[in-house]
Amino acid sequence: MATATPPQQPTPERFFNVMNAHHQTEALKTAVDLEVFTAIAEGNTTAATIAKRCRAAERGVRTLCDFLTIHEFLTKDGMQYGLAPDAAVFLNRNSPAYLGGAMEFMLSPRSREAFTQLTEAVRRGGTALGEGSVVAENPEWVTFARAMMPLARMPAQMMAAELRKGGEAHKVLDIAAGHGMYGISVAKENPGAQVYAADWKNVLEVAKGNAQAMGIGERYHLIPGSAFETDFGSEYDLVLIPNFLHHFDVPTCTTFLKKVRAALKLGGRVAIVEFIPNDDRVSPPAAAAFSMIMLVNTPSGDAYTFAELESMAKNAGFARVELVPRELAFNRLAVAYV
Amino acid sequence: MATATPPQQPTPERFFNVMNAHHQTEALKTAVDLEVFTAIAEGNTTAATIAKRCRAAERGVRTLCDFLTIHEFLTKDGMQYGLAPDAAVFLNRNSPAYLGGAMEFMLSPRSREAFTQLTEAVRRGGTALGEGSVVAENPEWVTFARAMMPLARMPAQMMAAELRKGGEAHKVLDIAAGHGMYGISVAKENPGAQVYAADWKNVLEVAKGNAQAMGIGERYHLIPGSAFETDFGSEYDLVLIPNFLHHFDVPTCTTFLKKVRAALKLGGRVAIVEFIPNDDRVSPPAAAAFSMIMLVNTPSGDAYTFAELESMAKNAGFARVELVPRELAFNRLAVAYV
Repeated sequence: MATATPPQQPTPERFFNVMNAHHQTEALKTAVDLEVFTAIAEGNTTAATIAKRCRAAERGVRTLCDFLTIHEFLTKDGMQYGLAPDAAVFLNRNSPAYLGGAMEFMLSPRSREAFTQLTEAVRRGGTALGEGSVVAENPEWVTFARAMMPLARMPAQMMAAELRKGGEAHKVLDIAAGHGMYGISVAKENPGAQVYAADWKNVLEVAKGNAQAMGIGERYHLIPGSAFETDFGSEYDLVLIPNFLHHFDVPTCTTFLKKVRAALKLGGRVAIVEFIPNDDRVSPPAAAAFSMIMLVNTPSGDAYTFAELESMAKNAGFARVELVPRELAFNRLAVAYV
Repeated sequence: MATATPPQQPTPERFFNVMNAHHQTEALKTAVDLEVFTAIAEGNTTAATIAKRCRAAERGVRTLCDFLTIHEFLTKDGMQYGLAPDAAVFLNRNSPAYLGGAMEFMLSPRSREAFTQLTEAVRRGGTALGEGSVVAENPEWVTFARAMMPLARMPAQMMAAELRKGGEAHKVLDIAAGHGMYGISVAKENPGAQVYAADWKNVLEVAKGNAQAMGIGERYHLIPGSAFETDFGSEYDLVLIPNFLHHFDVPTCTTFLKKVRAALKLGGRVAIVEFIPNDDRVSPPAAAAFSMIMLVNTPSGDAYTFAELESMAKNAGFARVELVPRELAFNRLAVAYV
């Protein structure tokens, strides 16, 4: 039973790396909050000059910047720090692709609190924070709408281009519109389309502002209130459900899809944008790991596989469901046909 | 200016991975707390049977185990979970190399609180938690002594073997002995040595128990109190300072080393076990990253380079200082000669 290579000795290294992984989260948040990346982009490249620009202690900045160098957000050459390419694009406040705002939502006090109670969430099989994030007029969704808009731009455009291949849209419903980017992208791809955006009243103000800024304000209409309770109207040829179903359990999603189907005209489609893991539920990593974000934040939401989404849609009366091969950043697009 | 390969497009992927890195820490802690790894080692391999053994919800366990599979602590084959090799060795409570206890210290409420205040620590250049971890009789050091003992065993033995090459030790002082493993290992390597352990009284009870269990109790003596204030005695031929200097600033370390030198006899040595980063302060990763753990936890501690330690020791009157080439797990060993 001789083997060509001896089995690798197990080491506790990964245990330590993961136990300390939260240090990385804190370091990135601190660096964004203190504008360290922006300071370096502006030409402050030593601990002393960065500290002055960021109003922090040189010793603290040196330790933070060394840590960010270890984790490859910065480079270090002698005493000079520089920005790694992705830090320059996404973490400099003056970059058009700046993502620092997304941190406000992803590391909100509530979201962090939810994760510190993971043990209780696993025991219960759902959030330890009670009602969860789906209560009416929750101001967190305004934060979400503002913070996540830059991130949604690209996948929303990709979705709109994919959907356009299936025909022109005329009357479009965007459910839980948030920042509005999905509906706005469809409006831009379909110059004759009227878009109806459904979300809480406070959130729709953000979407309306974005629609106006992007030149489609006159074709943009608001349906404020709970998506489960408001009257959507009817005769839509396209309904968008971007990153909404994952907050709810299968029966709730199925009932909701029935309501959506009733609002579609014959030949209409519903576009479901979601984190969709493979059937093994452990790949691809970002989509599969999203299940845990739902576990800690919602009573019974999940990242659904395509088979599960297909089953919900068929039980809601849709004739067929397709998974679009192209990925939309971390999301996938499933299209259900009446 | 044609290039053979196009430059890689920056992606926000690492930004998201690091922003979500704390999820990994929480998942590992929850899995250890609920004994998920132990449950699987005992033969419970489906979400349903693990949930029953761990008294948790099947849905919560399934999501947690999928997440642990994504991060390679578990394997998944169909519906069956298994332990990755290092999880089997280090995370099963019934394994002799179980490290779950180390989590109690590394993820103690105080340590976590310290990291959530990293921004303030960077502003100040030191811990935002006031006095820090170096107050008298802090019960956290008892937790430390109990929790970190299994981890110290191997580096302590390696240190003792290295030091034995330099000659037999007869009278040994172990400063901030903690679990006592460093002094105990020297006692075992030097059968005639008497070991004097200095630490807080409550911590020395742990060290004394370990010394007795390891058969050197009769050669083990206690010096309770502050290392800065108690009388160490004199005529030591070896003084151990394992993972102690990093809590203090350079002047404090220098003054302390003077006190240590005064306790050594002619020809004596001091063995400094530390996280010692290279002069660039960003490598090797574990030693370099330790600087941030000191930033958040202490008023002015640090991970010192060998050049800094050498300078402290020489300013304290030591004749020469050597860095032992062999690594002691994440630590290095510097030896200063009178």
